Amino acid sequence: MSELRIPVFADVEAAAERIAGVAIETPLLENPLLNEDLGARILIKPENLQRVGAFKFRGAYNRLVQFNGQERARGIVAFSSGNHAQGVAAAAQLLGIEATIVMPSDAPEMKVWNTRGYGANVVLYDRVTESREEIAAKITREKGSVVVPPFEDPDIIAGQGTAALEMLRQAHRIGAVFDAFLCPAGGGGLASGCSIVFGELSPNTALYAVEPAGFDDLVRSLQSGHREVNEQLTGSVCDALLTPSTGDLTFSILGNSLDGGFSVTDEEALGAVKYAWQKLKLVVEPGGAVGLAALLYGKLDVKGKTIGLLLSGGNVDESTFVKALSGGLPPVNF
Amino acid sequence: MSELRIPVFADVEAAAERIAGVAIETPLLENPLLNEDLGARILIKPENLQRVGAFKFRGAYNRLVQFNGQERARGIVAFSSGNHAQGVAAAAQLLGIEATIVMPSDAPEMKVWNTRGYGANVVLYDRVTESREEIAAKITREKGSVVVPPFEDPDIIAGQGTAALEMLRQAHRIGAVFDAFLCPAGGGGLASGCSIVFGELSPNTALYAVEPAGFDDLVRSLQSGHREVNEQLTGSVCDALLTPSTGDLTFSILGNSLDGGFSVTDEEALGAVKYAWQKLKLVVEPGGAVGLAALLYGKLDVKGKTIGLLLSGGNVDESTFVKALSGGLPPVNF
Repeated sequence: MSELRIPVFADVEAAAERIAGVAIETPLLENPLLNEDLGARILIKPENLQRVGAFKFRGAYNRLVQFNGQERARGIVAFSSGNHAQGVAAAAQLLGIEATIVMPSDAPEMKVWNTRGYGANVVLYDRVTESREEIAAKITREKGSVVVPPFEDPDIIAGQGTAALEMLRQAHRIGAVFDAFLCPAGGGGLASGCSIVFGELSPNTALYAVEPAGFDDLVRSLQSGHREVNEQLTGSVCDALLTPSTGDLTFSILGNSLDGGFSVTDEEALGAVKYAWQKLKLVVEPGGAVGLAALLYGKLDVKGKTIGLLLSGGNVDESTFVKALSGGLPPVNF
Repeated sequence: MSELRIPVFADVEAAAERIAGVAIETPLLENPLLNEDLGARILIKPENLQRVGAFKFRGAYNRLVQFNGQERARGIVAFSSGNHAQGVAAAAQLLGIEATIVMPSDAPEMKVWNTRGYGANVVLYDRVTESREEIAAKITREKGSVVVPPFEDPDIIAGQGTAALEMLRQAHRIGAVFDAFLCPAGGGGLASGCSIVFGELSPNTALYAVEPAGFDDLVRSLQSGHREVNEQLTGSVCDALLTPSTGDLTFSILGNSLDGGFSVTDEEALGAVKYAWQKLKLVVEPGGAVGLAALLYGKLDVKGKTIGLLLSGGNVDESTFVKALSGGLPPVNF
């Protein structure tokens, strides 16, 4: 892969202008019960309320809207476990671009169904025995379509960063300053974009990525100083965060900006899904709730602090959601 | 009951000042999938995101904060199926007032549990064989406590109206004008408060109340011109909306301001709960979702229009929520 340009704050600002009026400006929410439970002020950016039910639309639209006429005519290809798929499909539909999405066969049904609902051709592959990159490359060769990667792309990263840009502007309006910010991390596109924004506008905020246990390549990479890889590719309820590792580009950003990271178990992620249902009245998918899980299960001392919490998505199957509501979950740590 | 003063718009404005910074200014949400499904622009006021998970905190706090020192010392009594209970309990807790709440024994566990969580004494009664008014009156005689009624009170009504005041201001900021507004109705406190605000700020908006089937006293009252009563007191999944009838005060307001009303079946209410989970990523209780159900199941022609939709609460038991997600629901009407 050729070396990619590292996006800067101005790229996020430009992305915000491109997506204005198309992406949703999600609100900044605050819940007295959560504040009380944690003894802190938690300001929530609910990207489950974003178009397609996840932040992914931001980056996808920012990338696709910059295509020229010839590129649009050749269509696009993307590979994704689900939320990027929906983001790309919805952006392509709005822009009149033909989209083919390569999705793992174990992706949540809702995500596959929604991706088709946005008019995309869905090609399923086996996450363990097949390579999504090879399948996408084959389609690219045949049709000349452009591949829209899930995170290794300056425009995708800049687009995802608009969530943090909104969040900081919304916090500023209510006079809030973040001591820390927690963000789910899979490939690290969202965390990278948000890091760029916090670095520029709120450099004293401590930035933490949160990953599923067993998929904590980023936490380990931050410790070792070089890009680590996950041993397994399946086996967590947090389907949105199961990538082999961060990319060269995202790790080059995150390695220099994150203050640390945490990992949460499936049980903790499901506990956070239930808490969000019960107290926040929000539908959050397990991978989208890992930051909340980190707070509820005491991974970070937040007493008396102001915390920015990004909930990254809400696309969850019925069976997983019911499991979260009825499960024997670990008691929360307060 | 002595004749009660009919609240006016200035009362709602005063209430808004009293609850500012204590109640949550819930956002105005818009969802592209809902808009597309209905061929309309639906602007959603999600009062499930309000403190206590329902609009009821608005009215309760507006009433209690006006108590003088002696009244506060004697404590308060309220009777409620659940959301008013939580609203009163939370307001009383914030103001350091002792609260006793009389709740039906078939109220959702979560509502009873939460009401106790806000520090209130909960007294359970049988909805069919006992009178909640009598139980409350007995406590009042013994302790000298003031009864805080769920809807027959000018301050309660004015407080609930603040939801519409925020909604219209938020809509104004994005240049939206409502053709119609849909609001759940039990005793009619919320609908009354909102009617006062729309009458003042947006008199051309058509106002509709939505009730559960079998509890459509308001729809029948609007037709007959006098206050009708429901025959049964139990038997709907919309526990938040099961009152014998509107009150003298609320009907005196609603009879002159509503353009009509609709009723929805339990299946339709549960269908709306599922839709809100799946597409809006919001947790809404059946009684809170009746307005959405009216839209989804085609009770009103909304094509091309701008509609205000108030979701009144999100306090729902696990079993009811799971039933909504897994149920064989009527197909939505689009």
